[in-house]
Amino acid sequence: MRKIKVAVNGYGTIGKRVAEAIMLQPDMELIGIAKTRPDYAALLAYRMKIPIYTSREHVKLFENNGISVAGTIEDMLREADIVVDATPAGIGAKYKPLYEKYGVKALFQGGEKPDIADASFNSYCNYDECLDKKYIRVVSCNTTGLLRLLCSLNTYNKIRRVRATIVRRAADPKEDKKGPINSIKPNPVTVPSHHGVDVKTVLRDLNIVTTAVIVPTTLMHLHIVNIEFENPMTRGDIINALSARRRIALVNAELTGIDSTAKIIEAARDLGRKRSDVPELIVWEDSIHVSGNEVILMQAVHQESIVVPENIDAIRAVMGLAKNPEESIRITDQTLKIGIFREMFSIPKS
Amino acid sequence: MRKIKVAVNGYGTIGKRVAEAIMLQPDMELIGIAKTRPDYAALLAYRMKIPIYTSREHVKLFENNGISVAGTIEDMLREADIVVDATPAGIGAKYKPLYEKYGVKALFQGGEKPDIADASFNSYCNYDECLDKKYIRVVSCNTTGLLRLLCSLNTYNKIRRVRATIVRRAADPKEDKKGPINSIKPNPVTVPSHHGVDVKTVLRDLNIVTTAVIVPTTLMHLHIVNIEFENPMTRGDIINALSARRRIALVNAELTGIDSTAKIIEAARDLGRKRSDVPELIVWEDSIHVSGNEVILMQAVHQESIVVPENIDAIRAVMGLAKNPEESIRITDQTLKIGIFREMFSIPKS
Repeated sequence: MRKIKVAVNGYGTIGKRVAEAIMLQPDMELIGIAKTRPDYAALLAYRMKIPIYTSREHVKLFENNGISVAGTIEDMLREADIVVDATPAGIGAKYKPLYEKYGVKALFQGGEKPDIADASFNSYCNYDECLDKKYIRVVSCNTTGLLRLLCSLNTYNKIRRVRATIVRRAADPKEDKKGPINSIKPNPVTVPSHHGVDVKTVLRDLNIVTTAVIVPTTLMHLHIVNIEFENPMTRGDIINALSARRRIALVNAELTGIDSTAKIIEAARDLGRKRSDVPELIVWEDSIHVSGNEVILMQAVHQESIVVPENIDAIRAVMGLAKNPEESIRITDQTLKIGIFREMFSIPKS
Repeated sequence: MRKIKVAVNGYGTIGKRVAEAIMLQPDMELIGIAKTRPDYAALLAYRMKIPIYTSREHVKLFENNGISVAGTIEDMLREADIVVDATPAGIGAKYKPLYEKYGVKALFQGGEKPDIADASFNSYCNYDECLDKKYIRVVSCNTTGLLRLLCSLNTYNKIRRVRATIVRRAADPKEDKKGPINSIKPNPVTVPSHHGVDVKTVLRDLNIVTTAVIVPTTLMHLHIVNIEFENPMTRGDIINALSARRRIALVNAELTGIDSTAKIIEAARDLGRKRSDVPELIVWEDSIHVSGNEVILMQAVHQESIVVPENIDAIRAVMGLAKNPEESIRITDQTLKIGIFREMFSIPKS
């Protein structure tokens, strides 16, 4: 079978991770990445033999740093079956006409407005809906975290309403110009925050309201989620539903000592995960509080990597490479070694 | 040749890294680690098949988390040729009588007082002096960074005096209970700080005074070093001297974008370094300012990993496994892939 030719436009936090994930897929070929600056990430990509494309006016800059460029972004699009747009928020919309001109399918990220694409995407929620579409938007990290949880529970028992607070990290680890560094900032100060609205681009009829604040940390986001079901639930029901999903890791803080976002990242470092990434949604088992129809829990979202498996599945959906979500998810999880986190840090039942 | 049997007592930041480094050495065998808590690091070590020892009163705790213990710390010492003490600062002194009782050689870390050992150690400075000694102290991360720099330059031109400021990180990434988180703290407010004094445990006659402050960050320490030589130097002299050392990576901030400790760590993440570690001393090429006999520069020290190669070399010195530093350093650097950082992020001279 011919491998699907995938290009990645933008090589920052998401782009570099998705590019490397594509290289691990048996049914995909990374034909190149496009980048505007010849920085350390470009040097490393070049030395890893990844073809680098850039706009005509940047070629000289790359050559000054000893990096030979494979061609222009247009050259890259001409070769590709699909492009993953991982440019900064809002820039994807500016590139869309170029993708249209070259007749290439495209994935956009959650920083773009929903109407850029034919549908928004989450692997556990609406893979089927995105099959063979032309333009798909993979929702942002927080929305992905919420959708993974809700679509895992929704198959179990109908959800009546969701109220969630998103405690956001201020900046990514590499970002040394962003804040706040000594403040807790409502984000926005109006209610609702956009996260719940974004969840509804996938789960259209859900009654969900979210609020968000930003705190001075770089590691992960944390959600406090309150869910009301149509019917009473038990703690065991929730644990069973979440345990059935490889992309969710239930963690026992008391027994393992993994009791903060810092400890989750330290566990990922010890595990030898590249870049200390945690593409799994981490749910603290200790936090699951059930009372009648109501469930409250806390979960942590690694903003840099949680959308990577979703991008890979979205490529398969759009290109018709796998006709059902289970097939794509299985290949993605196996190649990205998702599932190891919960295996390694689980406590055997005595 | 029989492999040297090494035990590691303490499995925190330094212990877990040294244990894994030992497993990569052709002339050493890790016979086990000793730990007091059955946390995520213990779970992972257990699932990596590393024998875990603990004190008799902690065995039950480990078994409750499904971890079978290989024996007591005494059992471990009975088996070992040498123990690397990586217990918290000051605790090594409490263990020394036990090491003496079992007739086992021991390495201590920089958190112990110098007089615990027969000598303090740095691979580039005094390997020969530590050959076949019984107890050796591997100096702390900041002292290791200073010694790597000074012993690389001292072979080049005689140093008359050193004045340095240590801007310390407040806590390690996993430590979520330590501060300061919103203050710059003289550490101590008296001059000198202990770092220069500690340098003199290895370079006894050096005129060095250091000052230190703590700032709210977890990633790396940063040093501003002022060196006065006996004779005039050029910028080229400094660059040549530092380029000759694999454990020093000269980084060009302007050309690579690696212009902060956050970016150094991001580069290590992209490189796929386990735990994003940077055992190399990073010197910013841009910062090297030379005027007559005087040199000023800035360097960054990864507190979690810089002493790991030194611990491995110290084991070889104490056990007489390599009769000269070059031989040990070569094996250590090769097995720990030291040198890759500067190779991958260097800018070719045009």
